[in-house]
Amino acid sequence: MKKYTQIYNIIKEMILSGELAVHDKVPSVRKAAQIYGVSVTTVQTAYFDLCADGYIIAREKRGYFVSDMQSAQQYEEDDVEESNTEFDLTGGTADAESFDFTLWQRYMKSALRQTDRLLTYSQPKGEYDLRCAIAQYIKEKRNVITSPNRIIIGAGVQPLLHILCSLLDSRSSVSFPDKSFVQGMGIFSDYGFDVHTRDKDANIIYVSPSHMTRWGDVMPIKRRLELVEYSRKHGSLVIEDDYENEFLYNVKPTPSLFALGKGNIVYMGSFSAMLLPGIRISFMVLTKELTQMYDKKSFRFAQTAGKTEQIALCNYIRDGHIKSQTRKIRRLYTAKTKAFACLIKKEIPDAVTKIGENTLQIIFTSDFKKNLSEFEKHGLKVFVEKHENNKIELVISPSGIPYERMNDAVNRLKMSIENL
Amino acid sequence: MKKYTQIYNIIKEMILSGELAVHDKVPSVRKAAQIYGVSVTTVQTAYFDLCADGYIIAREKRGYFVSDMQSAQQYEEDDVEESNTEFDLTGGTADAESFDFTLWQRYMKSALRQTDRLLTYSQPKGEYDLRCAIAQYIKEKRNVITSPNRIIIGAGVQPLLHILCSLLDSRSSVSFPDKSFVQGMGIFSDYGFDVHTRDKDANIIYVSPSHMTRWGDVMPIKRRLELVEYSRKHGSLVIEDDYENEFLYNVKPTPSLFALGKGNIVYMGSFSAMLLPGIRISFMVLTKELTQMYDKKSFRFAQTAGKTEQIALCNYIRDGHIKSQTRKIRRLYTAKTKAFACLIKKEIPDAVTKIGENTLQIIFTSDFKKNLSEFEKHGLKVFVEKHENNKIELVISPSGIPYERMNDAVNRLKMSIENL
Repeated sequence: MKKYTQIYNIIKEMILSGELAVHDKVPSVRKAAQIYGVSVTTVQTAYFDLCADGYIIAREKRGYFVSDMQSAQQYEEDDVEESNTEFDLTGGTADAESFDFTLWQRYMKSALRQTDRLLTYSQPKGEYDLRCAIAQYIKEKRNVITSPNRIIIGAGVQPLLHILCSLLDSRSSVSFPDKSFVQGMGIFSDYGFDVHTRDKDANIIYVSPSHMTRWGDVMPIKRRLELVEYSRKHGSLVIEDDYENEFLYNVKPTPSLFALGKGNIVYMGSFSAMLLPGIRISFMVLTKELTQMYDKKSFRFAQTAGKTEQIALCNYIRDGHIKSQTRKIRRLYTAKTKAFACLIKKEIPDAVTKIGENTLQIIFTSDFKKNLSEFEKHGLKVFVEKHENNKIELVISPSGIPYERMNDAVNRLKMSIENL
Repeated sequence: MKKYTQIYNIIKEMILSGELAVHDKVPSVRKAAQIYGVSVTTVQTAYFDLCADGYIIAREKRGYFVSDMQSAQQYEEDDVEESNTEFDLTGGTADAESFDFTLWQRYMKSALRQTDRLLTYSQPKGEYDLRCAIAQYIKEKRNVITSPNRIIIGAGVQPLLHILCSLLDSRSSVSFPDKSFVQGMGIFSDYGFDVHTRDKDANIIYVSPSHMTRWGDVMPIKRRLELVEYSRKHGSLVIEDDYENEFLYNVKPTPSLFALGKGNIVYMGSFSAMLLPGIRISFMVLTKELTQMYDKKSFRFAQTAGKTEQIALCNYIRDGHIKSQTRKIRRLYTAKTKAFACLIKKEIPDAVTKIGENTLQIIFTSDFKKNLSEFEKHGLKVFVEKHENNKIELVISPSGIPYERMNDAVNRLKMSIENL
């Protein structure tokens, strides 16, 4: 339990037990820090949460007082959010070394100085110069040739899918042959589309050809050509989510569907995984027809991505940093994955591991007996992919684990498995 | 036409006419700047757009060359986006003086230094400490008492409504008595809800009680109590969009519906208008039931607001700057609105103007004969609210017009009216 949560609980208990009565003054931040041997910041954080949760109230220049609790009761059922995850093995954390913060800070500072631009709303499609930079980038990298007018920027793939859903006919059927993109399936289903995981006979086909499963299978070129041919013949729309295309390291990147097909393909890409998870900028390239529909309805859409980050990213791309960043990340994560897989083999020899053919993930197979909460108990966040015939399969992304902590993480994995 | 657009067109014409043939080298940036008497940056911008649009291609260290045009043709039908708006009178632009950029830059820089936090994805609901800060803020300001667990952050109201729609039963009917929020009506309608503008008998009622129309009518307290009572009796959900509550200047802010009701109210607020249009952070406070539904489905939602801005805003609020910012903006925009209204009276005495009762907007009535494109021709962006009986009504927000340019803006308004 974090220190400030301890302080939070101590004061909360004192209030609930009546030791501190309504309108009583709570010990000052400085005093409480002395009493409980913690820092002033810790107490302040705890007091802040107590305020936010309605137990105490702050009075300017006078300090904190026990509130009349009218408001506090209703939180009793709410949990204070806290996670005890020590190691995130789902790939949700980036390596501190993967990203040049100083460089990014420079671009952000420069963007923050463009005060005139920051005073206005972004165009609904996103900043024009960023769309130009993206057009140039995906042309060079994926042979996706498009005008900036067809590019829509958004704060992640989800807001973009919301726009796309509102442009498409919701009586259509959508197929997600890759199955794993539950968020996307949920969005289409919420809009009333007929969602299924079969491939054939759908009006809309959603694929991640560079990352078809968590195991990183890449759609082979033959299959890509078939899909493009099928969609052209049947007039179906293909949504190509070029998810983590940048991280393919074993294979030469296969051509994008967009480049193979001529027309009926919406191309989607994202920068969060390549830069920082906290930077929310994705984009989609609409077909000509969908762009016209968007333009007609554009009064209905607001840009979701922050303007400062859009400006910074535009210049970052123009100056060529995305390319070097991609190379750097690929090198770093390849080395880390190999090191982690090696440690697993040494410490948990019974487990069968293999490194995903084309991604930086380790597939880990083992028997299981009891339940899966052991991972959580040991501070591990993992994706459990399958558990049939007493087998579990974990897909492990060690990207966020520093080298010096890998031993610790593997030991926790070992203990979790032994207790399963 | 902007200078870089001129350069863009010159080179484009040379390519299309054949003066520059496929694979020809285009004049270097420096040379073109000399030839056309513009800056190097201007040429670079033009060349960049020519690249993005497929007319020319850049070769590292060799310069720019005419492309084989295979790609350029498909853009012919696309317009290069450009707006000739000199004065935005719709309130979409903020005043440079309204915002302390230096202060905000400091908070952003500090947030950018929190590298450990930036390496992970935000919680789906948004950063916990920002939700605490918002809970405290809306408690003090609007008497909205809630736990941070019920607060969902998003990059604007639209992504939040998408989440809300996916939590609600789409067989419900939704009423938008305020009519003007077309974006919101569109979203509910896309999800299959039965959307109408009557007030009664709806399962969900969407209101902006602090800003019921563009004229800034505020819902009176009696009506608020009735609505709360009605919703309680009929079990209907009220969505309270507390849009621009901060800008009310003639009246004391009326209590929020959330504070009046007990339970069935979703409260929404935003920071874009108060800080900078380019900062995309809004929030909603869910009911207990909706929070539970959200928690069950939370794996389906990703946070849309950027993490850096979330961290910066949290500390900005904690340090009390939102409060002084609100006061500052109210003072500044009140003065500007009065000054602008005064100029209109002087220059266009025939027009009937009045300042919106509770907002910083001017309502401008005049006859019209021909069409409304005159405003656009004169570089003005305006909302035309009504045009019946040969009358037009403009709602004018001069917030983004600097004092020294007000005369120019009013003169353009005058000329547009005279030519109508």
